[in-house]
Amino acid sequence: MEEANSNQGGGIGGGSGDVELIMVTMDSSPRRVPLPPPQSTCAKLKTRMKETFFPDDPFRRFNGKPPATKWLLGAQFLFPILEWAPTYSFSLLKADLVSGLTIASLAIPQGISYAGLANLPPIIGLYSSFIPPLVYAVLGSSRDLAVGPVSIASLIMGSLLRQVVSPSSSPALFLQLAFTSTFFAGLFQAALGILRLGFIIDYLSKATLVGFMAGAAIIVSLQQLKGLLGIVHFSQQMALVPVMSSVFHETREWSWQTVIMGICFLGLLLLARHISTKKPKLFWVSAGAPLASVIVSTLLVFLFKGQKHGISVIGDLKRGLNSPSWDKLLFHSFYLGTTVKVGLITGIVSLAEGVAVGRTFAALKGYKVDGNKEMMAIGIMNIVGSCTSCYITTGAFSRSAVNHNAGCKTAMSNIVMSMTVMVTLLFLMPLFIYTPNVVLAAIIITAVVGLIDITAAYHIWKMDKMDFLVCICAFLGVVFISVEEGLAIAVGLSILRILLQITRPKMVIQGNIPGTDIYRNLHHYNEATRVPGFLILAVEAPINFANVTYVNERISRWIEEEKEKHITFQFVILDLSAVSAIDTSGISFFMELKKTTEKEGLKLAFINPVGEVMEKLQRANGLHSLFGPEYFYLTTGEAIIWLSSLSKESRQGSKGTSGISNL
Amino acid sequence: MEEANSNQGGGIGGGSGDVELIMVTMDSSPRRVPLPPPQSTCAKLKTRMKETFFPDDPFRRFNGKPPATKWLLGAQFLFPILEWAPTYSFSLLKADLVSGLTIASLAIPQGISYAGLANLPPIIGLYSSFIPPLVYAVLGSSRDLAVGPVSIASLIMGSLLRQVVSPSSSPALFLQLAFTSTFFAGLFQAALGILRLGFIIDYLSKATLVGFMAGAAIIVSLQQLKGLLGIVHFSQQMALVPVMSSVFHETREWSWQTVIMGICFLGLLLLARHISTKKPKLFWVSAGAPLASVIVSTLLVFLFKGQKHGISVIGDLKRGLNSPSWDKLLFHSFYLGTTVKVGLITGIVSLAEGVAVGRTFAALKGYKVDGNKEMMAIGIMNIVGSCTSCYITTGAFSRSAVNHNAGCKTAMSNIVMSMTVMVTLLFLMPLFIYTPNVVLAAIIITAVVGLIDITAAYHIWKMDKMDFLVCICAFLGVVFISVEEGLAIAVGLSILRILLQITRPKMVIQGNIPGTDIYRNLHHYNEATRVPGFLILAVEAPINFANVTYVNERISRWIEEEKEKHITFQFVILDLSAVSAIDTSGISFFMELKKTTEKEGLKLAFINPVGEVMEKLQRANGLHSLFGPEYFYLTTGEAIIWLSSLSKESRQGSKGTSGISNL
Repeated sequence: MEEANSNQGGGIGGGSGDVELIMVTMDSSPRRVPLPPPQSTCAKLKTRMKETFFPDDPFRRFNGKPPATKWLLGAQFLFPILEWAPTYSFSLLKADLVSGLTIASLAIPQGISYAGLANLPPIIGLYSSFIPPLVYAVLGSSRDLAVGPVSIASLIMGSLLRQVVSPSSSPALFLQLAFTSTFFAGLFQAALGILRLGFIIDYLSKATLVGFMAGAAIIVSLQQLKGLLGIVHFSQQMALVPVMSSVFHETREWSWQTVIMGICFLGLLLLARHISTKKPKLFWVSAGAPLASVIVSTLLVFLFKGQKHGISVIGDLKRGLNSPSWDKLLFHSFYLGTTVKVGLITGIVSLAEGVAVGRTFAALKGYKVDGNKEMMAIGIMNIVGSCTSCYITTGAFSRSAVNHNAGCKTAMSNIVMSMTVMVTLLFLMPLFIYTPNVVLAAIIITAVVGLIDITAAYHIWKMDKMDFLVCICAFLGVVFISVEEGLAIAVGLSILRILLQITRPKMVIQGNIPGTDIYRNLHHYNEATRVPGFLILAVEAPINFANVTYVNERISRWIEEEKEKHITFQFVILDLSAVSAIDTSGISFFMELKKTTEKEGLKLAFINPVGEVMEKLQRANGLHSLFGPEYFYLTTGEAIIWLSSLSKESRQGSKGTSGISNL
Repeated sequence: MEEANSNQGGGIGGGSGDVELIMVTMDSSPRRVPLPPPQSTCAKLKTRMKETFFPDDPFRRFNGKPPATKWLLGAQFLFPILEWAPTYSFSLLKADLVSGLTIASLAIPQGISYAGLANLPPIIGLYSSFIPPLVYAVLGSSRDLAVGPVSIASLIMGSLLRQVVSPSSSPALFLQLAFTSTFFAGLFQAALGILRLGFIIDYLSKATLVGFMAGAAIIVSLQQLKGLLGIVHFSQQMALVPVMSSVFHETREWSWQTVIMGICFLGLLLLARHISTKKPKLFWVSAGAPLASVIVSTLLVFLFKGQKHGISVIGDLKRGLNSPSWDKLLFHSFYLGTTVKVGLITGIVSLAEGVAVGRTFAALKGYKVDGNKEMMAIGIMNIVGSCTSCYITTGAFSRSAVNHNAGCKTAMSNIVMSMTVMVTLLFLMPLFIYTPNVVLAAIIITAVVGLIDITAAYHIWKMDKMDFLVCICAFLGVVFISVEEGLAIAVGLSILRILLQITRPKMVIQGNIPGTDIYRNLHHYNEATRVPGFLILAVEAPINFANVTYVNERISRWIEEEKEKHITFQFVILDLSAVSAIDTSGISFFMELKKTTEKEGLKLAFINPVGEVMEKLQRANGLHSLFGPEYFYLTTGEAIIWLSSLSKESRQGSKGTSGISNL
């Protein structure tokens, strides 16, 4: 034990007990490479913490700056608006005005529609398109994100809350729970950002999201059959089977006027969408189509008195801006579990959408979006929203794309959109009285159809069958079971896959590429040839408790297989270049491996252990003294030269008693 | 899309669209290394399945054998007794007789004691030492395992079942639930073995087990205070706090005669244990001590009529062998959840103990124990046991060690032990009437004290602080919360650690070791020096959805840091040797990285992608055509030579327009 401590403190150059790497130069005289510089546990912990929580090193910019600059940089860090506002110009404003008005024309009908998806009054959707964009414009660092209610988060919130409270029989309580859930979602999002735990959303992989979004789009579209067919008594459930049975059970309720109107507007909207997809320059066609549809359909209903012919309309909407709602937040213990759960799920999902959208457009324009900072911005936006009659909001994919195509330059476009919504709230609300619900349904369907990305699913299928399985499980889970369980299944599968990769690490048998000093996978490189007398294996993953048993069994199987093929070898070389980490089980495994190979008359050698592995092996040596310097080499080539010469010497010493002749 | 398919089928040698590795030989003329041989998805799936479920390739032995031999080998595979029984000799029998009698002398008092730990009648412990060892002798492949009830599984079963049914007020129902739980445990264990899912127990790492066992030993010892102090009204809970408060709350119940007797025998037993630990040759001292204590204490009680002086005794035990108990298995839906849960937890825990003990002694004697086969053996043993009045059994660590030290040769020692227990059951039961419970408590404490392995904990501390954290969490969780939650916390932490390793993979910056063609971590090898004009990075983990964001951020940070240091470079080299796998997110990351580096005027190069990564990159190329052959090199050295020459050519071509001068 004493020895272990002295070794650990021994440092570079090292005492006689140190494990050292042998390097054989061209003239075969061994040269030593020192051990990694010793680090205290505290220093290592600090590095580890920094890499885990601050991989982007946000404080680097403060280094060596005068205090005044530091303050300014700090304020800019917290309020990105300070970065662009001082240099804001008229030409930028022109661009932002155009894009802001464009997304407002999309945001108003979508806001009303998505509120319906969450079983909330339509006006809440407009409120949510007014305050949150203002907050985001101050705090957010993306220049393209168009903020407001989104379809998937609305759907999840509506369906989860409906399991506890009926939105039709107790709408006031339902609204309270929606605000409270939004509050928790914001709290949770901000906390993730502040605690630098943003990497949690990385666990929603691309494959998961593609499958999940497609499934959610199907579910959302199915829900719109209610509006599209004019059905009054509709299933309370979300999954495919109950919805379809509900649709065909209530055929008597279908209203032909509604159906015709729905199909016409849906056709027009999809056509507009198709045009904009084909020619991005014509982005305004799909961007303006929803508002145009709302105006035209409202006029039609007004002129033909459609509401008397079975076409349901939005009805009277209260004029005026958001009223404060902090007094409506409900922290009663009976509903606390539900609201926290809904907040957690919608928080994560909307965060994933917002951050992914922000990153996508940032990459397109070549600027950076800090994930953790975005989380804080979105979180604070939702906390403020929950106190001002807004429900969950985030960066919407479809509107952000329109925003980008319309040429937005800064978050000012969100302010423009917000102001337009404010004008609508103050003066234009009575115009919505005759807006038919069927058009809102058509707008939602057109918006979510874009979430079904078949090309992406096809690419995933071509690239990686396992990823495709995750994708299809997310899709089927959402469509046939429920939104949250589908998501849970997909995330569970993704994590299981990673764990399985760890449990069954790649191990390869290597050979020499003739004429070089390169050793590569025998089964990959046909040129590679075995080195007689040596079994060269490489482990390509961290060795830990979850895979030591497998690695052990796999190595014994290789040794046995080689023996069955009557290939004689005297040395087992283990290339550890790719073993990036090791734990105590891994160290015990090396000790055991040494014993078993010695029993079989084989000599073991390790190639290029990385810093952490080397250090732990050395500490183990301090406790057990198992591995001398003759076990460690910097490259496979050097190990082979050195071990061959050792074995020749010993054979010359014992004059032909050794049975190995093919070295 | 067409192109992708033709590429995939293109095979070795490849068409013009193939990605190929450039190899630069000494004379700088590039040589091509072919792509990995193409494999169908099905073939890949088969290989993957084989490595996941059959890493030990159990069918290899059948290859190319005549049918009769195949049958014999198959029978030997299923019943390992057929391997050793035909060649069993008298000398082996002598050894097994000695060891069998030794472990029987330990198994009888321990069986009675452990049954008490599970709140079961003492005789169940003896029954469980009779039938299961016979079953194991036929099916098991370990030669050293001594089978019977064990402390931890008994403790867990007792404490979990007690949460549902009181063993004192409804003992018959409690017994039924114990048998049913044992049945499910066996079913679960056998299923794990048959489905080749044995690797699940690998997730109980050594650190987890060390902490868990120590915690369980403390909990078990505390429970023995009841017997040791003669307390009648004892806490029903297991955790430290309620037990200690119960002990000091009931001081009036302490019986001084019991306390004196307990301390004396505990002292003697610990002394015997100490002697055997110091001198393994004297194994029989600690092996015989429990039975001797039982005999002596029984005589003492009988002679001094101790039962009338407040010393509680076992009392009358029914003579005779196990009665069938399959009619007692209770599959009532009300208790099904409990019994399945108890079966699952005790099944996993006892499996981990049995397999670990089997492997330990197999490694000592140099034979192999097949984990999955052992699981089937232990599982069938428990299923049979549950139908013959036995509760959960497995290979016990302490008795197996005694068995090994006593020189056992085959599983025959289990049969000898079983026969001895049978004789006891048939003829010697009345002798236990006066056996005092306090001696049983002392026997349990002596047995479980050995589970507290402070040296192992110290080694874990020296080697790996994070492993130690897992260990200490398991310990504290078991002691202060509960046995199953402590275990769950430790396993959760271990998995979290692996996930964190994946989420934050090791990435290093490499330099050249002068005079060689070797590139290593700049911070690890002080000799290594930067190559001017090149930024050489290596990623040391699979690249997947969980870490692409991090890898991306880390690379941009490196590029920025180098620029801030005013180091000019034109090439970013990414060593992928250690990237053992990649998913679709990883491929997207490479594409994005190419775009961002190109924007910064940097050229990207990949070194040595392994088979799977290469294949996926090629398929992505089929879909997007991004990476030409100039992106891929076999070694860093070759990439540097080749890219330098390219850059020289281009500079000569553009006659000094390039600002890079230090190549």
